[in-house]
Amino acid sequence: MRPRARDLGLRPGQFAPGPLNAITDVAGVLVGQETRIAGEGTRTGVTAVRPHSGNLFAERVPAGLAVINGFGKLAGATQLQELGELESPIVLVNTLAVGRAVEAVVDWTLARNPEARSVNAVVGETNDGRLNDIRARGITSQDVLLALDGATDGPVAEGSVGAGTGTVAFGWKGGIGTSSRLLPAALGGFTVGALVQSNYGGALLMDGVPVGRMLGRFYLREHADKGDADGSVMVVIATDAPLSDRNLARLALRAMAGLARTGAAFSDGSGDYAIAFSTHPGVRRPAAGGMVADWPNERMSPLFVAAAEAVEEAVLNSLLRATTVESRDPATGRKRRVEAIDIEAVRAALRRPDAG
Amino acid sequence: MRPRARDLGLRPGQFAPGPLNAITDVAGVLVGQETRIAGEGTRTGVTAVRPHSGNLFAERVPAGLAVINGFGKLAGATQLQELGELESPIVLVNTLAVGRAVEAVVDWTLARNPEARSVNAVVGETNDGRLNDIRARGITSQDVLLALDGATDGPVAEGSVGAGTGTVAFGWKGGIGTSSRLLPAALGGFTVGALVQSNYGGALLMDGVPVGRMLGRFYLREHADKGDADGSVMVVIATDAPLSDRNLARLALRAMAGLARTGAAFSDGSGDYAIAFSTHPGVRRPAAGGMVADWPNERMSPLFVAAAEAVEEAVLNSLLRATTVESRDPATGRKRRVEAIDIEAVRAALRRPDAG
Amino acid sequence: MRPRARDLGLRPGQFAPGPLNAITDVAGVLVGQETRIAGEGTRTGVTAVRPHSGNLFAERVPAGLAVINGFGKLAGATQLQELGELESPIVLVNTLAVGRAVEAVVDWTLARNPEARSVNAVVGETNDGRLNDIRARGITSQDVLLALDGATDGPVAEGSVGAGTGTVAFGWKGGIGTSSRLLPAALGGFTVGALVQSNYGGALLMDGVPVGRMLGRFYLREHADKGDADGSVMVVIATDAPLSDRNLARLALRAMAGLARTGAAFSDGSGDYAIAFSTHPGVRRPAAGGMVADWPNERMSPLFVAAAEAVEEAVLNSLLRATTVESRDPATGRKRRVEAIDIEAVRAALRRPDAG
Amino acid sequence: MRPRARDLGLRPGQFAPGPLNAITDVAGVLVGQETRIAGEGTRTGVTAVRPHSGNLFAERVPAGLAVINGFGKLAGATQLQELGELESPIVLVNTLAVGRAVEAVVDWTLARNPEARSVNAVVGETNDGRLNDIRARGITSQDVLLALDGATDGPVAEGSVGAGTGTVAFGWKGGIGTSSRLLPAALGGFTVGALVQSNYGGALLMDGVPVGRMLGRFYLREHADKGDADGSVMVVIATDAPLSDRNLARLALRAMAGLARTGAAFSDGSGDYAIAFSTHPGVRRPAAGGMVADWPNERMSPLFVAAAEAVEEAVLNSLLRATTVESRDPATGRKRRVEAIDIEAVRAALRRPDAG
Repeated sequence: MRPRARDLGLRPGQFAPGPLNAITDVAGVLVGQETRIAGEGTRTGVTAVRPHSGNLFAERVPAGLAVINGFGKLAGATQLQELGELESPIVLVNTLAVGRAVEAVVDWTLARNPEARSVNAVVGETNDGRLNDIRARGITSQDVLLALDGATDGPVAEGSVGAGTGTVAFGWKGGIGTSSRLLPAALGGFTVGALVQSNYGGALLMDGVPVGRMLGRFYLREHADKGDADGSVMVVIATDAPLSDRNLARLALRAMAGLARTGAAFSDGSGDYAIAFSTHPGVRRPAAGGMVADWPNERMSPLFVAAAEAVEEAVLNSLLRATTVESRDPATGRKRRVEAIDIEAVRAALRRPDAG
Repeated sequence: MRPRARDLGLRPGQFAPGPLNAITDVAGVLVGQETRIAGEGTRTGVTAVRPHSGNLFAERVPAGLAVINGFGKLAGATQLQELGELESPIVLVNTLAVGRAVEAVVDWTLARNPEARSVNAVVGETNDGRLNDIRARGITSQDVLLALDGATDGPVAEGSVGAGTGTVAFGWKGGIGTSSRLLPAALGGFTVGALVQSNYGGALLMDGVPVGRMLGRFYLREHADKGDADGSVMVVIATDAPLSDRNLARLALRAMAGLARTGAAFSDGSGDYAIAFSTHPGVRRPAAGGMVADWPNERMSPLFVAAAEAVEEAVLNSLLRATTVESRDPATGRKRRVEAIDIEAVRAALRRPDAG
Repeated sequence: MRPRARDLGLRPGQFAPGPLNAITDVAGVLVGQETRIAGEGTRTGVTAVRPHSGNLFAERVPAGLAVINGFGKLAGATQLQELGELESPIVLVNTLAVGRAVEAVVDWTLARNPEARSVNAVVGETNDGRLNDIRARGITSQDVLLALDGATDGPVAEGSVGAGTGTVAFGWKGGIGTSSRLLPAALGGFTVGALVQSNYGGALLMDGVPVGRMLGRFYLREHADKGDADGSVMVVIATDAPLSDRNLARLALRAMAGLARTGAAFSDGSGDYAIAFSTHPGVRRPAAGGMVADWPNERMSPLFVAAAEAVEEAVLNSLLRATTVESRDPATGRKRRVEAIDIEAVRAALRRPDAG
Repeated sequence: MRPRARDLGLRPGQFAPGPLNAITDVAGVLVGQETRIAGEGTRTGVTAVRPHSGNLFAERVPAGLAVINGFGKLAGATQLQELGELESPIVLVNTLAVGRAVEAVVDWTLARNPEARSVNAVVGETNDGRLNDIRARGITSQDVLLALDGATDGPVAEGSVGAGTGTVAFGWKGGIGTSSRLLPAALGGFTVGALVQSNYGGALLMDGVPVGRMLGRFYLREHADKGDADGSVMVVIATDAPLSDRNLARLALRAMAGLARTGAAFSDGSGDYAIAFSTHPGVRRPAAGGMVADWPNERMSPLFVAAAEAVEEAVLNSLLRATTVESRDPATGRKRRVEAIDIEAVRAALRRPDAG
């Protein structure tokens, strides 16, 4: 099995990860994934994040959104921002599957809530069309329901799975990655977890080491813009700190720092978004007794640092754990192949005296 | 045939309307509508606005968005804002049909653009569940395609049609309404058109006359909040002025002024949005020769006034032209009926010495 | 003494005002005003709103901001939005006095907080240069301190006073106006108060009656844009409801509805802003015990309606209570005079059978 | 003379800098600085950036703003965003000097524009109170005027000068830094320049090397939050590319990527802002002939990369060129001293095999 970042000695930032080093270190968070590999063209899937195992429509969680670069089809954005909450799971798919994923989230929520007549489905996407026959629409509503129903706590599969099945990052195979951070008790003792669907470009940095340039693969090499930094990245951040929706939106923006430290180009064609939510029972909605828990602005900074660290490491995990994927371009009939990053080459790069 | 606002002597604002007094007075704009009335429950439909008859994905138009109250499921919001443009028609449906409408807009665009692998579908909605069996999902993808393909210039059907088939406004039957304004040559000579899907509440004002209170029907009557102001309103504004996306976003916000003058409550549960676009050839994208037409900030004010006026009158038209709709509540089996506003009562109200 | 709107029978909206029909009906709120009339040119002043009589820097209040049209010099906007709070009083002055008003608020706060090294002064402005020799900079830091120190509860002077001394609205003398609304117990029982500095234009509506057109004075008359709708309006909204900063920002945006109902043109050159804050002890910051009071989204709508009503009536009061102001243009030496709206003409307009 | 980053072999990113490696590589841009060191307490100053040497109020430039963390007192933000332009120079000072700096910019503009009655002064700040007796208000209006009038093209002084005289970054002396990037002709051939006022914290990275941790000085060391990451950073980005205000706002946000790569914590108490403007004559306002130059969304990505690189290197220059500053705390009487980063220690860190 391919290593995660820590297995290679990479330790971005200063805080320690949780036991699973995954978003599921935040108690209650569930992740479900469906991978769709079919024929020569379909290389895609679904990843769903459920903030808790209960009825989210009835017990909503506060949430915040950061639109880092809004070239994307994220559904549910405006209501999330207006009300500061999630009433449905977060589902990640490919660009052209957003419609049916919204439909599926609505179905799933209506089935559990006989009175519901309005559902804000939050569906993010990245464009896996470099490997996936995206126009073939390989994901069905059913796939989304399976991901939602199959969501569990525990370890999270990474790499070329779920909504990361066909994604590409920094020229190598990208995918799903996750990581977490535990704050020491003096700083609140909270957990922050991140999950990413990496499908963007730039010049890869691994904990500061310019692995992309060292391995000769990076955006704008030879000063030509081939659009290879486009594609998007979706970030989901969970925490058990009792944050207001405003502070969750601030937390979400710190994803940009984590992404930047992986060498992201933040290109025009990359839809880069982060959604953060809190699982703390004291901030569930509707609130009991008109009082809600609150963590003050003045104590947010360590959470901000933790979020950036977890996002950075989640991206590294998505790349390291991804496996090579091949397909055939339906338009040209040509084979397509995006290689997993070479672990030995990474090890060598990290060892080189000029690293950094 | 029921009258429009002007037929009753209502003339909100100071500018004259265009020949059709419709969004289609902006040359090139097409509107298509499909109405779905089926069985005892389905009372819904689709309204599509196409900025021009060409391939919008290839010839995009600048656009701006105003999120007045973001309790809604508007798809495509963030990309519209980030890139300042529309690459797909604007489709209006009901709340639970957004997923399949996105799917349909993607289908429609892919069919016309063999190379396309990314489509930002802009789909707005209001909740017609007070009349429509919304959980039955009465709209299909096919309905959306029919509305898109059937879009035409010329007069626009108003009232209980298309996406307004099942909507309710101020306690009466709402629906689709449209209006336009022509600016005098000294102020630029442009046309501004508006189309609304009215499904919200408050205390109805008709050109300042408190018709809602006079007829004894208004939100918070008896000081009880029955949620009857919820529901949402979608506003589409078209102009042939060569506006930047930033000034189109400013123009869109002026919809709030027009809505306010109809007595809107802007309640928590009403998702109120306005999208404005320009049809001027000098602002099409991609631009030719690296130059784009521009109308300066300093000359925007008359356009702002015109937009507010057109929105106000479009709402009045939506109410006046709407016809009574009945259905049966699938949950309780009870009959539901939302009456069209009584034209004679309106006439009387407008005549009363205490009007105003 | 000139009448307020209620004295003329105007009763915009449906809720009753508080005992003073002023922002000071919200318990604890203080207003201080300094008027500067000097020589032939200076016609200006300061209006300060203090959310409570304590040390605001030590006991901050949650707050939200709506930027309706950002053509203005509002200081302190970004921190107010990022932290969702006010740590200094809101001071209103003229456009060119913002710098010294910021300086004064900093002085005032430093004097009360020996440890303070950072102060976010929130200073709004409108441009009173049509009557005031604004380039002469008639306000001093001292004037701002006097307004802050002299702030009191109780009735609020309206019209041509304080920051409204030299302002113009709808072509007549504008100024400071205030109003309030009491929600019935079933809707929460809260008070919402508004204070405006009116200096903008359009076509004046008084509770729906088009007084501006009836009296032959309105923006774009003869289809010429003389910039007479420019100038700006600052709105301050106070409430004792325990609102989050997000819901205060939503409440603030409802000011646009109130302004629209007065006939505002929302012109390019009018900087239109609203700031809302809560005085509820349960939302003060820092919070005690990590819990804060919260009023849920679902119950916000009546507050939204109340805010729009109070803003509308505050504008009417600003116009009705304003008195004629004269000055001399320092550049041309010509006399300038902006007349108070003629009360008898208003009465007649409101009585006319074609009113509305 | 202390080295700049390139003198130590640091070359963040992939594009080459311009001849001066400074914001003044963007033709026409002027920088003026005034340093105020007085007595034992005052350690502060002013840095002014003028987009061109003409009358900016008469020939405005398009501009965009990114509010990365809005805990700051930036004046002029809302009008910059609403109109998408700068009509005054950008002035950087300390937190408590914003009021008088606004006053000075107004004075300066009024003096050059006899008709002006409204000026949007854009003044940014960081809090230099760890070294400067900030409550003593060491900057005068006159200092700001001197900086504006003394602004020149050519090399820019860096380190403990101007608005960077008293700032602290990553625990060492920070200050003013600048850098630039030239895009190859195939990518547009434009120049992007950045200037920073660094006064924030985190764990310093130098082109990926964790110098902060290697030298034992970083935020949250020993898991204690001493607020040492607070303080703020102001970033100014200039380019000669003909960008719309929307794309300038997007460009400005890429500053966050550059800051992240220096190890920024983006703490609660750090007001982090970036302002970007274009000097291209085809985008000056008012525009001639109703046409403006435009660089399309699709070609923005290399500019985004260049901006992030220039910001990153500007921060490194601010640290490396800064010199040790001492003062006395007026409250306690104690000496305060913030050391310049030790160049030899940096060299050693960059050489160490575990670098990176």
